[in-house]
Amino acid sequence: MFSKILIANRGEIALRVIRACQEMGIASVAVHSTADSDAMHVRMADEAICIGPPSSTESYLSVPAIISACEISGAEAIHPGYGFLSENAAFVQIVEDHDLKFIGPSAKHIRLMGDKITAKDTMKALGVPCVPGSDGGVPDFETAQKVAAEVGFPVIIKATAGGGGRGMKLARSAEDLETAFRTARAEGKSNFGNDEVYIERYLGTPRHIEVQVFGDGQGRAVHLGERDCSLQRRHQKVFEEAPGPNIDAATRARIGKVCADAMANIGYSGAGTIEFLYENGEFFFIEMNTRLQVEHPITEAIFGVDLVREQIRVAAGLPMSFQQDDLKVNGHAIEVRLNAERLPNFAPCPGLVNTFHAPGGLGVRVDSALYGGYRIPPYYDSLIGKLIVHGRDRPEALARLRRALGELIIDGVDTTLPLFFALLEQEAVQTGEYNIHWLEKFLAEKLEA
Amino acid sequence: MFSKILIANRGEIALRVIRACQEMGIASVAVHSTADSDAMHVRMADEAICIGPPSSTESYLSVPAIISACEISGAEAIHPGYGFLSENAAFVQIVEDHDLKFIGPSAKHIRLMGDKITAKDTMKALGVPCVPGSDGGVPDFETAQKVAAEVGFPVIIKATAGGGGRGMKLARSAEDLETAFRTARAEGKSNFGNDEVYIERYLGTPRHIEVQVFGDGQGRAVHLGERDCSLQRRHQKVFEEAPGPNIDAATRARIGKVCADAMANIGYSGAGTIEFLYENGEFFFIEMNTRLQVEHPITEAIFGVDLVREQIRVAAGLPMSFQQDDLKVNGHAIEVRLNAERLPNFAPCPGLVNTFHAPGGLGVRVDSALYGGYRIPPYYDSLIGKLIVHGRDRPEALARLRRALGELIIDGVDTTLPLFFALLEQEAVQTGEYNIHWLEKFLAEKLEA
Repeated sequence: MFSKILIANRGEIALRVIRACQEMGIASVAVHSTADSDAMHVRMADEAICIGPPSSTESYLSVPAIISACEISGAEAIHPGYGFLSENAAFVQIVEDHDLKFIGPSAKHIRLMGDKITAKDTMKALGVPCVPGSDGGVPDFETAQKVAAEVGFPVIIKATAGGGGRGMKLARSAEDLETAFRTARAEGKSNFGNDEVYIERYLGTPRHIEVQVFGDGQGRAVHLGERDCSLQRRHQKVFEEAPGPNIDAATRARIGKVCADAMANIGYSGAGTIEFLYENGEFFFIEMNTRLQVEHPITEAIFGVDLVREQIRVAAGLPMSFQQDDLKVNGHAIEVRLNAERLPNFAPCPGLVNTFHAPGGLGVRVDSALYGGYRIPPYYDSLIGKLIVHGRDRPEALARLRRALGELIIDGVDTTLPLFFALLEQEAVQTGEYNIHWLEKFLAEKLEA
Repeated sequence: MFSKILIANRGEIALRVIRACQEMGIASVAVHSTADSDAMHVRMADEAICIGPPSSTESYLSVPAIISACEISGAEAIHPGYGFLSENAAFVQIVEDHDLKFIGPSAKHIRLMGDKITAKDTMKALGVPCVPGSDGGVPDFETAQKVAAEVGFPVIIKATAGGGGRGMKLARSAEDLETAFRTARAEGKSNFGNDEVYIERYLGTPRHIEVQVFGDGQGRAVHLGERDCSLQRRHQKVFEEAPGPNIDAATRARIGKVCADAMANIGYSGAGTIEFLYENGEFFFIEMNTRLQVEHPITEAIFGVDLVREQIRVAAGLPMSFQQDDLKVNGHAIEVRLNAERLPNFAPCPGLVNTFHAPGGLGVRVDSALYGGYRIPPYYDSLIGKLIVHGRDRPEALARLRRALGELIIDGVDTTLPLFFALLEQEAVQTGEYNIHWLEKFLAEKLEA
């Protein structure tokens, strides 16, 4: 096992990793910019090294500074957290070239999944369901008819050279197809000088469902069920839950096995998340994140595992401490992301936190880097903490979330706390019947009102 | 279900009940003395009623004041917490006479278990193991020999009229018996004017093991395993864990079934704890607590249940939400009691809490009534909070406890926090090989050193 780990990150995720290190008896090294000298991760780690000015590019993203910090401190491994250098294959290569361990998958797998087209082709070949559609361009209307019939309506016809919604036409049924096909071609031609189009199944109101996977790098891999992260604003998740409110055990086992088998097949190492759109009982691969996810605590809650400890174990060459049969869903968990943002426009709201009081009691977990007297710097992501609740079932988790939100005090800066009180009043949230468009619509309606 | 519950208590246990009410959609009424106007339970409840001056006798123990508070607020039920009026059968009778519900067992069962002799006789008749010994007085040495042979050595011979260790003699083997018997009689005669003695099995280094039971008052009852609370100072528990470090699943199932069957037999309602001394694989009944226990959260952690919610459900006439087969031990949990006391003498240390920062992250629960700026009043119990950790196994729980203790900040008053850091260094705590005398010996040695 490693004796010292450097955490190449900040905020709550740096704390998350430091906590795992402490519980494993591993010394932790924090790195920080000059703006983060008073940050909680600096206070909690065994050692802290300043690696540059506030700008992320010159500090948390500076590969030479981070490698130097390892050499100075004698750290043997680097945990990247999420964001920053966590999915940077070149960084992983440099880490390995310096005889250090990267706590995460291999550079090869990061690269493979980092390229969206290669990722999709790989997943398709591994039997992971992808959005059905044409193989490349559709030359004429007869081919379009054949493809659309195979794919199933509604379909969307997209200009190969298109973007920003232009050259993109929806055909809800066979009757719409010809007009849509010809309009998409014409728009492609006039807007991009290229009339080639391709066809895909259109998903109108999908959910975002992601499967947590974990591999040992030796060809063994498991899944840890799914998370529903459909409640998004500008593609940023704000409220996540596990298990998915409309995923049954058989569906979970089926998609989970497909994902775990795919990971076993490629020899994936460590934690990863395979993201899907989910509609009418079908999964469609979007992308894979080759790192720990912000919302990993809800999976930890319902499976009773410690994913960071597991990442560290596997990176050190130890076997996984659980097998598929050990992993049973227990209850329901929800996470909400506390951002230092001012509603209704979500304007970043850094500044001095006068008082921080965390909720307590049964089934409540707080992952936050706040403390009373802390000044949130304006340079980084606005995520300042996560509130995670666990209950025996979904209604209990929702009730516990409402209760815990009521206990939380973050005084001095505006946060997204009021959003969650509002969400809990909504029928779609109470029943779990929402999709990836629901939150944007809700926010737009609230703003108009 | 009740629409409003009054909590006849203060401190962390009042918060515990208020939280359950909030999660169940039940309005909560706090009561408080004038010393507790700024207390957290007053702030968190939906309503708060001042019921008297600082003295407990005139406030938290004042039956008329509490009944009046119910009538004023329209509360339909009373949760007594632990301590104060929680095991007062007369109070329960008065509550019922006012057409209010007492959230706890019947007055009859509280009375039955409140009298230690009746409790022991009842438990013995119900098949619960008690310390073996003579039935009453032992008239002569020949009978003593017969009883001792049946009971098994070592035995202790006690003067019926004795007390304070006088007239109490240990016989480790048959050879010691005659001297011990005659000395005990002689001491009884000279000290108490009565030479009658009785004989009991002597327990040298027992553990304190207690079984959590729960009944629906209709003849159904379950057990929720055991807690080991052997680490005690002056009969006050300071560190509790579940499951017991040296109790295996078969032992748990066996003693648990005996306890659950006994409770089913008497039609017990709500939460209760049956306390045992445990030595060489044998259980010996001490007493039963007919209320929620301070250390209930470790049972909640490993069984994934909410005991307070369950108490409220059953008091409202609903069936229990779990059956014996649903209750499986999951991992290991430890609780430490944070007292506002100054080491090494445990002198009470009330006063102003400048800063309170609770630990966070995976597997950590904080039940505390503290907040930054709160002044701990000098009138009540020194328990100010509990830190509960849950891990996949005992080593993980111990490591998590150490980590969480390191994050906890209670600035302004002395607490028992340093004791737990010291305990975690001790081999007996690391291995779980301690008994009810261990902590007192450890503290005595530390004081001498």
